[in-house]
Amino acid sequence: MSTSADTNDREEGLAFQPKFDASGLLTCVATDAATGDVLMVAHMNDEALRKTVASGEAWYYSRSRQALWRKGESSGHTQRVVEMRMDCDQDAIWIRVEQAGAACHTGRHSCFYRKVEQADGRAGLSFVDSERQFDPKTVYRS
Amino acid sequence: MSTSADTNDREEGLAFQPKFDASGLLTCVATDAATGDVLMVAHMNDEALRKTVASGEAWYYSRSRQALWRKGESSGHTQRVVEMRMDCDQDAIWIRVEQAGAACHTGRHSCFYRKVEQADGRAGLSFVDSERQFDPKTVYRS
Repeated sequence: MSTSADTNDREEGLAFQPKFDASGLLTCVATDAATGDVLMVAHMNDEALRKTVASGEAWYYSRSRQALWRKGESSGHTQRVVEMRMDCDQDAIWIRVEQAGAACHTGRHSCFYRKVEQADGRAGLSFVDSERQFDPKTVYRS
Repeated sequence: MSTSADTNDREEGLAFQPKFDASGLLTCVATDAATGDVLMVAHMNDEALRKTVASGEAWYYSRSRQALWRKGESSGHTQRVVEMRMDCDQDAIWIRVEQAGAACHTGRHSCFYRKVEQADGRAGLSFVDSERQFDPKTVYRS
């Protein structure tokens, strides 16, 4: 069990002490260094985090494929890390990146291409910034 | 098991179909609508999500306290939602907010007040934008 001394150290200290969840993952938010737009939310395990820090390129861990994954390894749409920041309790990472091409597997610049809006008391979505920059069928050949 | 028709519908459709994880949660990223800075990464359950959409103020679900939580209910540091976006597979939400006061429980504007840097092959942290806007001891009285 963590003590308040542990918590204070993790929150106010300068030691890199990532707090992985029960599955061994951190949440990572990637934003576009030029525009500030959130590009994607993904996960990193210890190895992905170390490779990202060491290489200056984003590596993630895919929960669905259960595999380490260098962003852009299939698509060429890599992310160069401009700045990396850790949050207060060290369980989330924010990376500001230079995105080559598009971040989203659907071909869009960002994964967040739909706005949530309420009409007649119900929530619905509408497209925004949703132009495709590539055709996923041609990029991800099986 | 989800089919590719389900996936296509969730990714390309305009129906609001949040995909909660095994704990009933979505990941939410809050950014400052004025500066684009990531303020915090937190979680929403179905009720927090509905209350956020309906009220235009951020509500979260605290995993540690296992409780619904209106951002700012103790501190007064509320978040007014300017825009809400859903990601491709509908398991993450991005909200652009007007932050009253500071987002972080440590008293800082953002939870991401430390930069990750590599020196001598080891990762470490350094403070950046880390001035406190309030003293947590006086704001969160027990």
